[in-house]
Amino acid sequence: MNAVILTVGDEILIGQITNTNAAWLGERLGLAGVTVARMETVGDDEPAIRRALGRALEEAELVVVTGGLGPTHDDVTVSAVAEGFGRAVAFRPELMEEVEAKFAARGLVPLAAHRAFAEVPEGFEVLPNPKGMAPGLWGARDDGRLVAVLPGVPYEMKAIVEDHVLPRLRDRVDGGVVLHKTLLTVGEGETALAERLGALSDGLGEGVTLAFLPGLGMVRLRLTVRGSDRVAAQAQLDAGADRLRHALGDLVFGEDDETLEGVVGEGLAARGLTLAVAESCTGGAVAARLTSAPGASRYFVGGIVAYDNAVKRDALGVEAATLQAHGAVSEPVARQLAAGARAALGTDLAVATTGVAGPTGGTPEKPVGTVWLGYADAAGTHAVRLRFTPDRAVNIALSTTAALNLLRRQLLRRDRQG
Amino acid sequence: MNAVILTVGDEILIGQITNTNAAWLGERLGLAGVTVARMETVGDDEPAIRRALGRALEEAELVVVTGGLGPTHDDVTVSAVAEGFGRAVAFRPELMEEVEAKFAARGLVPLAAHRAFAEVPEGFEVLPNPKGMAPGLWGARDDGRLVAVLPGVPYEMKAIVEDHVLPRLRDRVDGGVVLHKTLLTVGEGETALAERLGALSDGLGEGVTLAFLPGLGMVRLRLTVRGSDRVAAQAQLDAGADRLRHALGDLVFGEDDETLEGVVGEGLAARGLTLAVAESCTGGAVAARLTSAPGASRYFVGGIVAYDNAVKRDALGVEAATLQAHGAVSEPVARQLAAGARAALGTDLAVATTGVAGPTGGTPEKPVGTVWLGYADAAGTHAVRLRFTPDRAVNIALSTTAALNLLRRQLLRRDRQG
Repeated sequence: MNAVILTVGDEILIGQITNTNAAWLGERLGLAGVTVARMETVGDDEPAIRRALGRALEEAELVVVTGGLGPTHDDVTVSAVAEGFGRAVAFRPELMEEVEAKFAARGLVPLAAHRAFAEVPEGFEVLPNPKGMAPGLWGARDDGRLVAVLPGVPYEMKAIVEDHVLPRLRDRVDGGVVLHKTLLTVGEGETALAERLGALSDGLGEGVTLAFLPGLGMVRLRLTVRGSDRVAAQAQLDAGADRLRHALGDLVFGEDDETLEGVVGEGLAARGLTLAVAESCTGGAVAARLTSAPGASRYFVGGIVAYDNAVKRDALGVEAATLQAHGAVSEPVARQLAAGARAALGTDLAVATTGVAGPTGGTPEKPVGTVWLGYADAAGTHAVRLRFTPDRAVNIALSTTAALNLLRRQLLRRDRQG
Repeated sequence: MNAVILTVGDEILIGQITNTNAAWLGERLGLAGVTVARMETVGDDEPAIRRALGRALEEAELVVVTGGLGPTHDDVTVSAVAEGFGRAVAFRPELMEEVEAKFAARGLVPLAAHRAFAEVPEGFEVLPNPKGMAPGLWGARDDGRLVAVLPGVPYEMKAIVEDHVLPRLRDRVDGGVVLHKTLLTVGEGETALAERLGALSDGLGEGVTLAFLPGLGMVRLRLTVRGSDRVAAQAQLDAGADRLRHALGDLVFGEDDETLEGVVGEGLAARGLTLAVAESCTGGAVAARLTSAPGASRYFVGGIVAYDNAVKRDALGVEAATLQAHGAVSEPVARQLAAGARAALGTDLAVATTGVAGPTGGTPEKPVGTVWLGYADAAGTHAVRLRFTPDRAVNIALSTTAALNLLRRQLLRRDRQG
């Protein structure tokens, strides 16, 4: 099956927003076996949408339209789609009731313009939006051409695609199978991983390809198998993943949609361990990552963001003399922060961060990007020094990931020591 | 002048790369007075490029093509452009000498495929590439249609556009200017803002347009002025922004690239106030947002992530009887959390969050999405209840923004009370 992705929005054309929706859709459709032949962006203008949709329906079996749904967009997208399909738009009272219930749940009442959320071209299915108000739409033309119409807000669009669009496509993409598995690694860069894999990068077998997808402090390794038989393809995929895992060992922390905070959290829960954090340079980001995982209250007790040195001393028991002698960004302070969080919050383990995030505050000995991480458990404390970049946001993100990875590696070490 | 931006590259269609080139070009062309009517992306496929180029030349006075230049792209773009203009492609030995000199400067010798860098459609100008090998091309068809062909590597493309394309456009776009200003609002949705603005949405004057750009808990309002005179256009823009600010009052927190955490932080710094946070449902996200702003140590002292009720009691002094009687997600606990953070960390102000982030933990009285925010200063405490969504990540993000906005509004209230 081939597809055209059509994005609606003046804000894309003037460059105020980068079209991340199209990239995400391109990847997801590709993984589902759909070939994206073209992407197009037009403004919030009904004739332009109608022309683009007509072109797309001429050449592709599937057209995915994002953006242009919502009360202030004057429904141009829904009207244009209805016209492209030769269908009238109908107001559906039962949808309006759902919209009213969603508003009521937030203590609000819909306004007149919100009627747009209940206007649907005839014969179209409504795709529920679990994260917002504007539902998606799914329609099939008499000649079999398919169209999905989605809101432009990225997290709403993604939820509807995952829940409703991709399952509908799986039933229709026949013939060849395309299977994917992504191994998630942390702690080494793309080039180091490639060297470690050596010939394995290119030698995973006929029809098996490997892509390196680098991110902040992490690299995803995506294995793709194309074949005609699902069982054989799955076996090839599993064998390839096993070989990569064998070569990379503990650098691999998970697969596919897993997250580092989820893996660490489940590791703590499985071992019946509790955790506290003490954060200086990460400013709450480690706690925020940990608690973004559902069920974090099983193992995460709490944290102290010790931005000011007074908080390091008073709330976490860091010695004034140590701060004076070594500075806040130092090995002994990282250890005392971790030990202090563990004692103050009464947990089994604790992790701590202290560093120079930037853009100011660097010195020749401790330039911007210098970070110490601390770890404490019943056996004592441990610290590691890292050197990152001149960029504040990058340093915070890399420090946060490194702190979670330190925890992960300490859990593995504890297991080995029995 | 209107334009179509045509991006060539399989890597965009499969979502491996986000099309940041198109966004950058959209903004730059817009600022130069060129209206981008459409953006399109096609793969490295000559017939597809030819069709897209033909369509674009039908409808726009200028077509900017990026990507598809370079030795691994098999010159499909240059061939397609030449065909679209009815011109032959010629090898230019003097260009090849320049390429050889560039390679030699890096101690390299060009390969056979690099001859592509010296192949130019007849009658086209060559636009030198100061940052790479593949030059840009500039051509005018007999009917006056213009085409710029640029490499896909972003920093090379940008350098050629700045040095050679924009100056050529300035000579042709006579007088037209396009100016933008974005007002940032928090606390009301798109529809409520539109109702509040009423006729103002459409009545900001000839040549002035307003776009609503909704995000999580925030809506950006983008004003655009098109005119022939820069001074007059700037005056119109400023007048339009003033009218919006007047109509929306405190809902507007900033402009253009400002952030809510930056505005709150500068507000605290300007008033010489210090801040602590106590977080339950946001799990560190409020502290992380506040400390993402450079210079946060001027006003942010620290925070306590009180995930477990024991931390709420022991570190923040929330009364056990209050927790027992009202539950952790309640008005009195929100007030005690804020007062406790202010006392424990010795700050002027404190803000607190407690809520049911989900996906579990909801009850009929306190469904998932129920959040209480607390605030404390020397005058006492204040609390507000909010109702968000069933989604954990959305609830955390909305609660975090609402906590920052509560702080902002309390600063404004304090100013009014003197």
